Amino acid sequence: MPLRLDTRDADFADRFDALVNARREADEDVAQAVRGIIARVRREGDAALAELTTRFDGFDPHAAGWTITPAQCAAAYEKIAPELRAALDLAAARIADYHARQKPQDSGWTDAAGVRLGARWNAVEAAGIYVPGGLAAYPSSLLMNAIPAKVAGVERIVMMSPTPNGALNLAVLAAAHIAGVSEIWRIGGAQAIAALAYGTEQIKPVDVIVGPGNAWVAEAKRQVYGVVGIDMVAGPSEIVVVADGANDPAWIAADLLSQAEHDPTSQSILFTDDAAFADAVADAVEQKLSKLTTGERARKSWEANGAIILVADLDVAMPLVDRLAPEHLELAVDDPQPLFDRVRHAGSVFMGRMTPEAIGDYVAGPNHVLPTGRRARFSSGLSVLDFMKRTSFLQLDAAAIGVIGPAAVALAEAEGLPAHAASVAVRLT
Amino acid sequence: MPLRLDTRDADFADRFDALVNARREADEDVAQAVRGIIARVRREGDAALAELTTRFDGFDPHAAGWTITPAQCAAAYEKIAPELRAALDLAAARIADYHARQKPQDSGWTDAAGVRLGARWNAVEAAGIYVPGGLAAYPSSLLMNAIPAKVAGVERIVMMSPTPNGALNLAVLAAAHIAGVSEIWRIGGAQAIAALAYGTEQIKPVDVIVGPGNAWVAEAKRQVYGVVGIDMVAGPSEIVVVADGANDPAWIAADLLSQAEHDPTSQSILFTDDAAFADAVADAVEQKLSKLTTGERARKSWEANGAIILVADLDVAMPLVDRLAPEHLELAVDDPQPLFDRVRHAGSVFMGRMTPEAIGDYVAGPNHVLPTGRRARFSSGLSVLDFMKRTSFLQLDAAAIGVIGPAAVALAEAEGLPAHAASVAVRLT
Repeated sequence: MPLRLDTRDADFADRFDALVNARREADEDVAQAVRGIIARVRREGDAALAELTTRFDGFDPHAAGWTITPAQCAAAYEKIAPELRAALDLAAARIADYHARQKPQDSGWTDAAGVRLGARWNAVEAAGIYVPGGLAAYPSSLLMNAIPAKVAGVERIVMMSPTPNGALNLAVLAAAHIAGVSEIWRIGGAQAIAALAYGTEQIKPVDVIVGPGNAWVAEAKRQVYGVVGIDMVAGPSEIVVVADGANDPAWIAADLLSQAEHDPTSQSILFTDDAAFADAVADAVEQKLSKLTTGERARKSWEANGAIILVADLDVAMPLVDRLAPEHLELAVDDPQPLFDRVRHAGSVFMGRMTPEAIGDYVAGPNHVLPTGRRARFSSGLSVLDFMKRTSFLQLDAAAIGVIGPAAVALAEAEGLPAHAASVAVRLT
Repeated sequence: MPLRLDTRDADFADRFDALVNARREADEDVAQAVRGIIARVRREGDAALAELTTRFDGFDPHAAGWTITPAQCAAAYEKIAPELRAALDLAAARIADYHARQKPQDSGWTDAAGVRLGARWNAVEAAGIYVPGGLAAYPSSLLMNAIPAKVAGVERIVMMSPTPNGALNLAVLAAAHIAGVSEIWRIGGAQAIAALAYGTEQIKPVDVIVGPGNAWVAEAKRQVYGVVGIDMVAGPSEIVVVADGANDPAWIAADLLSQAEHDPTSQSILFTDDAAFADAVADAVEQKLSKLTTGERARKSWEANGAIILVADLDVAMPLVDRLAPEHLELAVDDPQPLFDRVRHAGSVFMGRMTPEAIGDYVAGPNHVLPTGRRARFSSGLSVLDFMKRTSFLQLDAAAIGVIGPAAVALAEAEGLPAHAASVAVRLT
């Protein structure tokens, strides 16, 4: 049974606090082991990659090949079912369109003091994209990670993916073909992140590393943060649905389950103002769970982390939603805009009855790589900006430095930095 | 003697590689100690803060007071020299103007498939700003860190600063008054970062932590990254100056020294196409070093990390500058634009003969918190965006889901996620 709360219960505040503060992230202590792997890859390069890949993936790249070629990706694209190929093409085109609008504008102006100033954006030169192997190798994730880099103007997009026992995922290779990935290395785990950050004899390092992974990959990304840029610290997926009683309970149950089926640590929460509807949704979830091939995972998630929260009216729900700062938020009402106007912290919002979250996972256009675990309070979904950086600039002439220079001299002197002061003062006449 | 290189020397490539890859960052191993401090603050809260502050700063907040009040800041503002007050006011106004132009625009549109989509930006609710104590307490840094948060719309700006033996820096308090800091706690070190990230009985946690600090502070920020947002991993400051022979050698020497005086680990590099000018700059540096009150620090930096690099012509310098990806880049020529057009990786660029880097440290407007240690390859200076986050949104109607829904179903099925597929399929008619 998922948690059932009612805002009108006497103990609601405490129980909701507990829900907000519950941590679903495993504290798997792999930091030390990951530090060892990174040090070894830095020291031994490709030899370390080959040995670790043979050991962990049962795949010896020296014998079986280090890379997957563009020709293999093109062949995979031709080989997959036409319906899947068309779906990937549609998704890629819509993701590219959405992200093209994120490209920042350069700026430049001259102010009243005669100072010319502004900022210019450039793409990073190389991006690394981690793609998990096995079950969690999702072509949609590859598109969501690679296309923003491509749109940003990144020249070199390097994919790292383990191929346990040599297994290839054709849909992922087809997606790599569509997204224009430059290189694919059959390496996974912390060793792949180390190779991306520091390079080896045959792998050139990159500037930014993105993409989902297990605890080892996540810890490795955290450890190389600062040597390269990384996308974010990611946790289990989650959805909050705010729904009135006019929804079809089966639809809302389907939406809650679409998160729950990801992983036992996923979380699905329903806010509603209709107790009968809440019961109907709970019943619908139970019915669907038994029929779902992913039902075992989904049931664990729903029973351990799911919640149904009754509110006197949906407006009451919105500050509570903000406290949860959910990755995904559905507003399943006829007129979602007034509720949306009250949302401050959420990764992505799905408005109205006809916008299930899963549409955003695949083909809508906005990125599905989103902040989890209340991180929407301070971070954003993956975007073109993650693959670009800004250079500010400044140009003064003799008149302009005459206007603002004396203040710089005064501040430098107050801070005890005489060479700073002198570099301005010598230019004042 | 600083390093002298010439691109025409046979061993130039190797020696320049060594310069690019030289690490000036101390690998002080404080990770374990910092982990202990953070755990203790999480466990014991204010009691831990009081004990650590008494031990490290010789200042017992229980006895002497935890906070500095807005009234104390206002009094400091009145008390400092009028010239310094006016300089801080000018700097604050110019920083606010520059950063106001960084505020991102919300977007929203409806595409050909009938899908409404876009993104909306919001400020974080609370930002923590670390301000070092003692010598390194710079009012300019406080302005550069706090004003972008204010411009972003952050309601609560919490400053943490150690006051060793109770010492207060009036100029910093005056800057806090100008910038509108909400709370000031007299706490420093890793314990201050822990309090900002996790909160204590009396200190509410924040969403983003920014500001410079020593190795303990930097490591603590790295450890809480993901619980909160942080600005960046910062290293020693650096400048690259590209100058032709028409500059006054004394001016360029002053610019090189303005970085060198920060710290023995700072770096100043000159590229020039004029050997006689290079010699003249080196001489001018020597002359100034002996007269500078910060000369001892500056000499250590210049001799250990300084470099003068001769190039056949300044165009040759630009790809080399990109490899260094410097925090600060001066282009000291009559017409800097063609050189600037060739720059891809730099934190901030200072164009022309009348734009010394120090003017940007204080009063020009762009932020002086910039990526160091080649991180301009992938990261940007501090900006309003560091205090804001984006929520994407999506709204479909029955017709729109009819257009793009079937592709989502196909992809979800290919990925083995039937509940994802079902949540879309139930809405297709």
